Amino acid sequence: MAILLVNDDGIYSPGLLALYRKFRDEYDVVTVAPDREQSSVGHAITLSDPVRIHEVVQDGKFFGYAVSGTPADCVKLAVRVILKRPPNLIISGINQGANVGASLIYSGTVSAATEGTMLSIPSIAVSLDTRRPDADFSVAAEFTLEIAKKVLKFGLPAGVSLNINIPALPREKIKGIRITRQAITYFDDFFERRIDPQGRTYYWMSGTMVEIDRGEDSDLMALKEGYISITPIKYNLTAVEYFDSLRKLFE
Amino acid sequence: MAILLVNDDGIYSPGLLALYRKFRDEYDVVTVAPDREQSSVGHAITLSDPVRIHEVVQDGKFFGYAVSGTPADCVKLAVRVILKRPPNLIISGINQGANVGASLIYSGTVSAATEGTMLSIPSIAVSLDTRRPDADFSVAAEFTLEIAKKVLKFGLPAGVSLNINIPALPREKIKGIRITRQAITYFDDFFERRIDPQGRTYYWMSGTMVEIDRGEDSDLMALKEGYISITPIKYNLTAVEYFDSLRKLFE
Repeated sequence: MAILLVNDDGIYSPGLLALYRKFRDEYDVVTVAPDREQSSVGHAITLSDPVRIHEVVQDGKFFGYAVSGTPADCVKLAVRVILKRPPNLIISGINQGANVGASLIYSGTVSAATEGTMLSIPSIAVSLDTRRPDADFSVAAEFTLEIAKKVLKFGLPAGVSLNINIPALPREKIKGIRITRQAITYFDDFFERRIDPQGRTYYWMSGTMVEIDRGEDSDLMALKEGYISITPIKYNLTAVEYFDSLRKLFE
Repeated sequence: MAILLVNDDGIYSPGLLALYRKFRDEYDVVTVAPDREQSSVGHAITLSDPVRIHEVVQDGKFFGYAVSGTPADCVKLAVRVILKRPPNLIISGINQGANVGASLIYSGTVSAATEGTMLSIPSIAVSLDTRRPDADFSVAAEFTLEIAKKVLKFGLPAGVSLNINIPALPREKIKGIRITRQAITYFDDFFERRIDPQGRTYYWMSGTMVEIDRGEDSDLMALKEGYISITPIKYNLTAVEYFDSLRKLFE
């Protein structure tokens, strides 16, 4: 069984290394990841520029391929160029920080999994709910292995990826798994206005996610209550439920 | 009534200029667009770098603001920094080339409209089905004005944007409007392997969209048959229809 590991934090991310170490004994693992951090790039792909591939060594041996592109580029390059045949599963992560609510739209981690699904390969995105630089990814990697085994055995519906978020807790504190929906949230963006050393104005964006959704079945609430959230997501965006009202208005 | 115009082809794109000229007599129009082409960047936003805003003159007078960022950055900056109050409508386009089927996931044009919707502003994306450099955007701009008037009058459901595609035909050849769904398609990606002047390998991506969907209600087929397609799209990706089967498997 071949598993492709990708991420958006870059080839040297500890979350990717934790997955690699957890999966390499049982599976044929290939890692393909951006050569630097590519967070919040969404589903960007590189068409106007060339991309390059470099081999990377970790723990004294060949670890994988660093790509001068986006997470979605990595998946396409892995499947079309690097691998001889499509992998049985793509795992994107483990991301440093949760991907819940409105974050899914901006997330390179989630987009890499979506890209895999678009290429008809079962794909999951995994995030750990902490941004601490000394975060321990080993418990999350264990749960990812358990979930991956089920996906490999039972498959996923066509067009659907799993977006998985794992609480940053010791194993015995994690209460279980909840199948969840993307929470309704929004970002309260703020642009800090600054002046550069040449006296010119620039802006730097930051944002806080505003949580207006308290539903127990949301990804956000599952995490808060100590559960692993698994949200099935699709890339067909059509809002079929508004066809009738729009037909009356426009047709 | 204030209308924000954005795009992903850059501030000097003829599709943006066509919208500007069509809307400026009746509305208070502000244009905010990337300072260069930002196609296929999806919903990328710029968090790791600063962004700058430059004022741009066209036709001898102030035309709008060029932003050193992505289409989604443009919408956020316009709403949070440039405009004194939120616009009544955001129009993203007119894009050079259709945005149908799987393209929606990669499209900066569509993502700018989605960003507007996430900020609770009625938002539409508009694309013209041609990549000819001498394309005439005036007919598409006329139809956009007609559709925009209806959106301004009747509003849009919360969380829903309209993705509009217009055939590159004379007005009398366009058969009408169809409310459509995103066609089921995929990209047959190809990476051309090349050698740079230093003897190093690089890859350049290209792709052809494979059209496996012949449904009359798809965006793709509407365009092919000479109709304007309007697809309601949402940014909540949850595939609720798989909750039961996934609960059995994981909970």
